[in-house]
Amino acid sequence: MAKKIIVIGSGAAGMSAASAARAADPDAEITVFTEDRDVAYSPCMIPWVLEGRATWNGIIMHDPAWYAKERNIKVITETKVESAVNDRARDGTVTKTVTAGGKTYEYDSLVLATGGKVFIPPIEGTQLPGVFTVRTVKGGQELEAYLNKSQKVAIAGAGVIGLELALALVNIGKDVTVIEMMDQVIPRIADRDMAEPVQKYLEGKGVKFMMKTPVQGVIGTDKVEAVNAGGQTVPCDMVVFATGVRANVDLADQMGLDKGQMGALLVSPTLQAYKRGRLVPDVFVAGDVMQCQSAVYPGPTMSQLGSSANKEGRIAGANAAGKKLEFGPVASPWVSIIGDLQIAGTGMSLGLASWYGADCVTGKATGRTRARYYPDAKEQTVKVIADRTTHRLVGAQILAGEEATGRIDWLTAAIVNGTTAEEFLANSENAYCPPTSQVRDVVFAAVEDLVRNL
Amino acid sequence: MAKKIIVIGSGAAGMSAASAARAADPDAEITVFTEDRDVAYSPCMIPWVLEGRATWNGIIMHDPAWYAKERNIKVITETKVESAVNDRARDGTVTKTVTAGGKTYEYDSLVLATGGKVFIPPIEGTQLPGVFTVRTVKGGQELEAYLNKSQKVAIAGAGVIGLELALALVNIGKDVTVIEMMDQVIPRIADRDMAEPVQKYLEGKGVKFMMKTPVQGVIGTDKVEAVNAGGQTVPCDMVVFATGVRANVDLADQMGLDKGQMGALLVSPTLQAYKRGRLVPDVFVAGDVMQCQSAVYPGPTMSQLGSSANKEGRIAGANAAGKKLEFGPVASPWVSIIGDLQIAGTGMSLGLASWYGADCVTGKATGRTRARYYPDAKEQTVKVIADRTTHRLVGAQILAGEEATGRIDWLTAAIVNGTTAEEFLANSENAYCPPTSQVRDVVFAAVEDLVRNL
Repeated sequence: MAKKIIVIGSGAAGMSAASAARAADPDAEITVFTEDRDVAYSPCMIPWVLEGRATWNGIIMHDPAWYAKERNIKVITETKVESAVNDRARDGTVTKTVTAGGKTYEYDSLVLATGGKVFIPPIEGTQLPGVFTVRTVKGGQELEAYLNKSQKVAIAGAGVIGLELALALVNIGKDVTVIEMMDQVIPRIADRDMAEPVQKYLEGKGVKFMMKTPVQGVIGTDKVEAVNAGGQTVPCDMVVFATGVRANVDLADQMGLDKGQMGALLVSPTLQAYKRGRLVPDVFVAGDVMQCQSAVYPGPTMSQLGSSANKEGRIAGANAAGKKLEFGPVASPWVSIIGDLQIAGTGMSLGLASWYGADCVTGKATGRTRARYYPDAKEQTVKVIADRTTHRLVGAQILAGEEATGRIDWLTAAIVNGTTAEEFLANSENAYCPPTSQVRDVVFAAVEDLVRNL
Repeated sequence: MAKKIIVIGSGAAGMSAASAARAADPDAEITVFTEDRDVAYSPCMIPWVLEGRATWNGIIMHDPAWYAKERNIKVITETKVESAVNDRARDGTVTKTVTAGGKTYEYDSLVLATGGKVFIPPIEGTQLPGVFTVRTVKGGQELEAYLNKSQKVAIAGAGVIGLELALALVNIGKDVTVIEMMDQVIPRIADRDMAEPVQKYLEGKGVKFMMKTPVQGVIGTDKVEAVNAGGQTVPCDMVVFATGVRANVDLADQMGLDKGQMGALLVSPTLQAYKRGRLVPDVFVAGDVMQCQSAVYPGPTMSQLGSSANKEGRIAGANAAGKKLEFGPVASPWVSIIGDLQIAGTGMSLGLASWYGADCVTGKATGRTRARYYPDAKEQTVKVIADRTTHRLVGAQILAGEEATGRIDWLTAAIVNGTTAEEFLANSENAYCPPTSQVRDVVFAAVEDLVRNL
């Protein structure tokens, strides 16, 4: 009999899980439940759609009809899963059901890909018209409609989404203020010295910043009229919360699944869930709802990236269909394109490293992306971080005019392989051609500086 | 007393050796001898200078006066080293001298960075005016002067230099024919399936190719009038030989230093030379004249790249000044920019792998460089090669519209670390942002295809 696989959630994790399950088992009955109206789109693209560089339809790769026809996957949209059950009775029988839209469905394997929720601080006024998050196409379209009648926009949160959005909105002529509680942009994953030039660049483009300032309330009678930013009233027509994502564990809590100290689901290397310390063999987890293992220091981390969700989904989906793939620990490389600037990072920032109690040493160098005698070379600054005791590379950040992504993927490979700074200098090589690189990449100068500081 | 360090050769290896020696020893007397007129320039840039994208002066980073003033390094140009001696007498005393320009100099440490010579086949007519190689600024300027009165150019050799030059010359309106002995462009380091689109692209730009055709003679009375290409007379005004580089071992042979099976100097991990199987403690070697160890398969390889020469020079120079740095085995990543195309490779091509008797399996995938919904995404094809027995990644090639370099450096790190195809899929990650990458890079699809083929 065909295996019944149910996937809850249609983000990068859920849809790759469904497709991977289909690839692993041509006969399974695969059903995806989602509260969303659209599936298989790129939420990361929303700032660029608002700026007019792509269309809403353009960022939706496939619709439910495509999944039905091409992959024999049933996608049930705009439907909340009210409950999910995986209960073992004393006699060993296990009840495995999902109830959604008033109907109850049995499953053999379940993939929980319920994703994350934008954290909105518990303050007054967040229910007013004019308060938005950037998470779905539907929400993005509502935001866009509201934006058309707005001029002043407050963005709460100076993470990469907040900054990408801020630039998109000043680029279309809006008056944008970013309000950030911490004392730097891109807090947590970027170090202050790497983040500062990004803030300066955005200020040059007209974005206003209020740093070390919490949003303490949204003010308005029938709609947003201002925000209370650290006691100061900042008039605005709308507020966008880009204040980070928390694991959406509502359903998992209901099922009694185990969570880690970061409030996300604990998983086995095969991405199976736990319940009271015991592996739940037929419940798989993927995406923003799960806790990961760090590839750098022993211990937990979150990897709420589209790329991680995609990878986790492929593994959880294949395993739900009977495979035994493992999900490795993560360095979580990331990159953000802010106009002419690219900022990227991997592994530990100094802030993240301190969470592990690590003592780190840094190295830094600035140079060109290409041979300096080749036209249009851009500047790049590379920062590398190593553990003072082991000398292992534990993190890197790059701020560059171009091609930061490949370099950060390169450094990620070195970090994941446990390469020390000295080994990196001895054994690493970079490809060279004047229009695309230097004979010796700036990455080496940064690691050399690090070795001097060790 | 100040240590006397002599460097022979002023290419990427020689000049980085001199600078590294200075960094390691502020007091040493450092002298560089070179037959060249200019130093510290990028020979790889010559095609783009001929095309007008940079100037001759622009690609020379420093002149001898700068080295004298800024680094206290004496650079003696246009001077041939007639002999070099490192002879141990029966009583243990060692004679260490270099004779150049009729004068004899003593040294404590010697760095041999005599580079490579363009291999010109032993055929008739190669001494005629109108025959050139692409190796020095001086030679490039002579070539340019001759080019101004020429229309038809034959290029012998379809390696990356030959192809970059061919495109530069058609771009400035010349009639260019590339004559290649093998049956594909970029033979040896690129596989045929990856190289073919490059040839097609160049044909589209007007470059003519004669494949499987040896240049058997240069024809002319007072100057080049044609070449004999496989028996066929091809009229042309000039011929450029880009037929590969052989180690320039003239001086090393005179000194009796040991060579490997590739005709280049054998070196210790510290880049010291050997003589009759015995380490020569005060003779260091760097650049195109030396043989390397492969990072992929046990055995020798050549790594005649600017990036390798730079790295070897730094180590040889520092060690000549008393350090004990080691030069690791090489994967030799390379990249060539051919107009809108970037072709890059690392580790073994199938052709190179066969030289090691290896049995390899390949995987290949084509996709976009960026999220497909982001404007201006380019196509990229990634090919990966693994050993059939160990499953270790041994090589990769990328043909892309942009950003091949970072990806090939990333794959190089995986290859050098001995990563298997399966480990790569489990433990690798790529940074994602729609304007610069896909949520899951094409590299992963290629490795996945490889795993299916294993």
